[in-house]
Parts: sequence; structure tokens; C-alpha cells
Amino acid sequence: MVDVAREAGVALRTVSRVVNGDATVGDQLAERIRRAIDHLGYQPDERARQLRSGRTGTIGAAVRHIADAHPVLRAIDESARGVGLTVVAMSTEDDEERERDAVMSMCRRRMDGIIIEPIADGHQYLQAEIDSGLAVVAFDRPATGVAVDTVLSDNRGGIQQAFAHLAAQGHRRIGYIGDDERIYTGRERAAAFREALSGIGEPLDGMVHPGPIEQERIAAALESLRRRAEPVTAIVTGNFNTTVALIRALGPDFGSTALVGFDDFGLADLLRPGLTVVAQGDVEIGRTAIELFRSRLAEPGGPVRTVTVPTRLIVRGTGEIGP
Amino acid sequence: MVDVAREAGVALRTVSRVVNGDATVGDQLAERIRRAIDHLGYQPDERARQLRSGRTGTIGAAVRHIADAHPVLRAIDESARGVGLTVVAMSTEDDEERERDAVMSMCRRRMDGIIIEPIADGHQYLQAEIDSGLAVVAFDRPATGVAVDTVLSDNRGGIQQAFAHLAAQGHRRIGYIGDDERIYTGRERAAAFREALSGIGEPLDGMVHPGPIEQERIAAALESLRRRAEPVTAIVTGNFNTTVALIRALGPDFGSTALVGFDDFGLADLLRPGLTVVAQGDVEIGRTAIELFRSRLAEPGGPVRTVTVPTRLIVRGTGEIGP
Repeated sequence: MVDVAREAGVALRTVSRVVNGDATVGDQLAERIRRAIDHLGYQPDERARQLRSGRTGTIGAAVRHIADAHPVLRAIDESARGVGLTVVAMSTEDDEERERDAVMSMCRRRMDGIIIEPIADGHQYLQAEIDSGLAVVAFDRPATGVAVDTVLSDNRGGIQQAFAHLAAQGHRRIGYIGDDERIYTGRERAAAFREALSGIGEPLDGMVHPGPIEQERIAAALESLRRRAEPVTAIVTGNFNTTVALIRALGPDFGSTALVGFDDFGLADLLRPGLTVVAQGDVEIGRTAIELFRSRLAEPGGPVRTVTVPTRLIVRGTGEIGP
Repeated sequence: MVDVAREAGVALRTVSRVVNGDATVGDQLAERIRRAIDHLGYQPDERARQLRSGRTGTIGAAVRHIADAHPVLRAIDESARGVGLTVVAMSTEDDEERERDAVMSMCRRRMDGIIIEPIADGHQYLQAEIDSGLAVVAFDRPATGVAVDTVLSDNRGGIQQAFAHLAAQGHRRIGYIGDDERIYTGRERAAAFREALSGIGEPLDGMVHPGPIEQERIAAALESLRRRAEPVTAIVTGNFNTTVALIRALGPDFGSTALVGFDDFGLADLLRPGLTVVAQGDVEIGRTAIELFRSRLAEPGGPVRTVTVPTRLIVRGTGEIGP
């Protein structure tokens, strides 16, 4: 196609239009391109083969924010490249309408499928696309109202790891601050924390603080955990943004209360003390998403799978502060 | 189009194929879709209008790594959304061939244009696409071999700010560790630093360390700055990744040597001491990129512009340590 463009002295974009039967290209120009196609004996190559098969080798990734550091998106991008697939990413901004727009825009752009970090409550709208051959894989949260392959973190297991680690240092009054329970991961993590606290016979009252990730809300949750008759001696945070907001709220007191954060991040080891975290298996989640995606393309009618990827405790300092 | 899909009982993807004249849709199915189009009196809407005009309302962003935190990409995404444009992003991985593949893939996908963080040395290949109406805006680094609208940071001004701030605290032996000079920004920043050092009459010998951003190389550069007969009392780093590697190399000595980093980042205020930085005007860069993009679409033959966005010094602690 590049050779055709060169031979006809036109842009690849124009060749692409003619090949796709776009009527906006003038007759004379289209004729010149067709002559170049004939002259060069332009043969079906991998791309043409993909076009015939309806495949494009491209995956659309609909993620919350394309411009945020996103270790799973990185792993998806790298795994895809490893098997000759290309990822294009769009932001959904945690907005249901935007999510649907992004997915539909990807459908119009002839992606082979989409990998989605689902927001919207109902994903029934995907069913017709799936029936027409679109491969769909959800990650981080399950899609609802439609059965698709899914990769999740072991949210409950991760919270149990964090809790057990603090309990092993002798902590009993352990508080939790995390994400909104309307979000799947926020719900799972808060529920696991409540179970863990009940499991050591401690009352739940006032110890579990899920909610929106806003600096003020998180500072208030911290205050309420500290102002108890018996203040907490340790805190578990439910995700990266909560952890950062809590560290800001602690200010110079950071390092005086034991802390384990859910989610690892690049600079966690540069804090003083270093931050102990429960890390998600980002690389494995990304790799698994691509595997599920390829299996789905290969066998569209195969059974739908959900894979849960384990978390890992990384000890760095804040989680080893005694009660 | 969504209504047509519902009426015909098919996926939007299938309607899109028929509308685009894709022969892979069976005759019977295509006929059913055409009947639904007639029955609903499917009228040219905004999207159809865009199709006729050859516009799609979509910008392809070719950036180094889609999964890294990228404040300019965030600003581009937000500014685009504000004016009804959608951004799809692809990684170039700092690889020339991949950059060209990404750009060509975007051309095939009928983007209205591309916003590119250029890597490759020669961007002549873009000329035919530009001539065919593709809008192209470069940011962070200029494209080479082709005249396109460009948004740059004031790299030289930023280094001067960092240097002048340290000199004002009484530092004279100030070292620099930064990115490879083969990269435009690395070259500009190192050159500005050499000028600044010469400007106060200090010898350059062994004070300026551009190179690949690898932990070992940066640790060695730090060692050489410290082992001088008269060790440096302050360091300027050339970008975010160099700053992080230097902080790791400093280990417990972080905070004993004055430091100003080029590039701000989300957790810079949580370090102890807080990190003084020269911040790039990410929001303004993103906003300007979208403005240039829209002007280019509106007036394809207009004069090519380069906009330079100023940097800003943010004082937090490390830059205020005395000699």
C-alpha cells in the first residue's frame, strides 16, 4: 500500500480511501491509484488478508484515564506487541456515557475487539457487538449484564494479606480507608476488611471508611480513626489514590502509625519510611487479558472465563511499625 | 446509526460495515440493514456530515508510552474533549519504526490528524499525508524534515531558572545530570546548563553529565560530581526519570545536597525534604496543541507556527539547601 502511494504520488491516506471505496476521492485520482495497484501487482498482504478476514490486528483499550500511570495498560500494550497486535487507547473518564461512546467509536473503527476497564452498570449494549464477532475482555472490574472474559485482582486476598501482616505485628485496632463501595473493587476490599476485623473479634463500628477519594473526606476519616477512645494503631488503604491522600493528611505524622497501602507505585520506596504495600499482579493481569483476547478471537463460541490474579505483599517500612 | 442497528437487529459494527461498503457482510444481511436505513429515514447526522467532509472528529496521539503518567497527554485529552474531539493514543516506545507504524495506522483509520511527540530523525514521510489534508502537530520535540505546527517547553529558560535559583543561594559548583543529547530536549537542556555555568565563570570540565537514563550511569555521574577535589554543592537534573534515579542513588544522603529537578510530579511534595522543581506548563502545552490542531484543520495552507511555553519554579525544600 505504501508502494502504491509512492507510485501514484499520493498519500497513503488517499490509497486507503480508494481501497475502502470512499467516494470522496475524485474519479481521476482514484483511477490513477487503481492503475498503480495494477501496475505494481499489489497482492493481498497481511493487512489485506486481515481486511478480508475482517481482522485488523488492533485492540481498543477503554481505560479510565489514558494519561494516568497505568501499569496494567502498560502490560497489555507490551503483551499485545509481543504477539503482533497494536493497542489504541481511549479515556472513559469514569463516565458511563463516555465509556459507551468510546466503545462504539472503537466498533466503528473496526478493532478486532476491546479490552475494557468497565464503569457503566449495564453492558448489555455490548451483546450485539459480541454476537457480530467483537472480542471483549474486561479487567479490574467485571462487566455487568453480559458474559465476557474477565481478569480480576484477588481483591479480597490482598486485603487479607495486608490485615494479617499488621495483626502479626500485634496490631488489633486496625482502620480502613478506601474507595467508594459503588465501585466493584471498593466494595470487595471493604467487605474483605470487615471480615478480617470480625475474624479477630474486633467491633467494626467506625473502623471502615469507604467513600469518594477526596482529600477532605480522607482527612476526616483519618481524624475519626485517631479520635477514638482507643485510637487505631494501624491503617490499611484501599488503593493508590487513597494512600497518597492519606500520606498528605498525615503530614509530619507519616511514619508514626503503621500503614499498608493497596497498590504499589514507582516512588513508594523513596518515601521515608518506605511504604509497605499489597501489589497487584499488573504484568500478569495484562498478559492474561491478551491471552483471553486471543483465545476469544480463535474460538468466539468458547466458554467465558474469569481469571483472578493473586496480589503480593512488599515490605518496606510503614507496615512494620509496632502498635 | 444506533437506531438502524436496533431496527435491523444487528450490531452497530455490521451497520458500519455496510455503510462503508464492506463486501464481507452477506447480501441478505446488507439488504436488511438497507431496509432499516430506508424505513427509519436515516438522515445525515453530524457523523455522516463528518464522513462526507472526510472529518471524523478524532485525533491520533502518538506518544512515547501510553501507559506512563503523561500530563501533556492528559491536557490534550481534556482540551480535545472540551471542543468535541476524541483522542485515541498509541505508543511509539521511542522507536522510529514503531512511530512510523503508529502514524500510518492512524492515517488508515481516518483520523483528522495526529499529535505527535516526535522521535524519528526524518519525518519527511509525513509530507504526502499533510498534503492530502492530515493535520499534524508536534509537541515536546520538533519534527524534522517537514514543517509542522509545534509546541515546545522553554527548555533553556527552565534550566536557567533552576541554575539561577541555586546560584542565588550561594552555590557556584553546580553539577548537571540529564538525558541523552541525541534527544532534542536533552540537548537543549545540557546546552543551557553549560551556558549558565560559563556565565558565572565556572569551568565546565566534568560538571555536565548527559547520557542514557540508567540507574548505574546516573549513580556513576553522581559519584564523579562528589569525588571532585572541590565537590559540587548542588545538582540540577534534566528530567523526571533522571531525578528519580538520582534520588535512589543518593539514598540516605537525599537532602544533604541541594537539588532542583526538571519536571514536576505528583509525589514530589511527599518526599522529605520536598523536591524543588522546574515544572513544565503541561496544561498550556496540551491546550496549545489542540488550538494549533484546530487552526490547521480550519486553514490547511496557513503559516506554520512554533509556540514555546514557559516553565515555572516550584520551591519545596531541596533547592533551598545552602552550599
